[in-house]
Amino acid sequence: MSDPQCLFCKIAGGEIPAKVIYQDDDVVSFEDINPQAPVHLLVISRTHIPSLDALDEAQESTVGRVVRIAAELARSRGLAADGYRLVVNCGPGAGQTVYHLHVHLLGGRGFSWPPG
Amino acid sequence: MSDPQCLFCKIAGGEIPAKVIYQDDDVVSFEDINPQAPVHLLVISRTHIPSLDALDEAQESTVGRVVRIAAELARSRGLAADGYRLVVNCGPGAGQTVYHLHVHLLGGRGFSWPPG
Repeated sequence: MSDPQCLFCKIAGGEIPAKVIYQDDDVVSFEDINPQAPVHLLVISRTHIPSLDALDEAQESTVGRVVRIAAELARSRGLAADGYRLVVNCGPGAGQTVYHLHVHLLGGRGFSWPPG
Repeated sequence: MSDPQCLFCKIAGGEIPAKVIYQDDDVVSFEDINPQAPVHLLVISRTHIPSLDALDEAQESTVGRVVRIAAELARSRGLAADGYRLVVNCGPGAGQTVYHLHVHLLGGRGFSWPPG
């Protein structure tokens, strides 16, 4: 389920400190260390899924739960009225730096298009 | 399940033409009409979910399936090696223009940070 070498598994397990703002049995959210918006959270599953490219059918409900919790956190932070953006990078060319699937939740400012 | 006034429900139902590149019982993907990358697909559920902010717990597996199909399409298009980005906008301030939850799949070029 977890990878002992993985930074985000260590954060989820409380071995490495982070500004954790939500956790339940399946999902953990914490502040991005290099925020790109007034609110910039990462939302992950406790299950170690290295990337979108590693996602299998049995993990659909897990990733769906990560997305729903991200939306709930957005609502609870008051981001829904003005809007927010979820982003998932897959692979180095897209800027994925930690190989534990994570959803970026960005809000509290306007957003341009294209998205990077 | 579907909203007769919704553009994306009409595309999913074949009432309005689009460059559909994938469909199954649950998910439809088609080319973005205003592409922002060499590959720019939209991936939607046939179920009408207006936005992330309207997502409920019973729809977690649906949205997870949308994300997994997006990853499969990225792989089949050869985007996984160099990387790709998934983006979901929620609300007008984030650039959501059609109120049927959709995942943008962008690939075939490099990506900058922040994501818009």
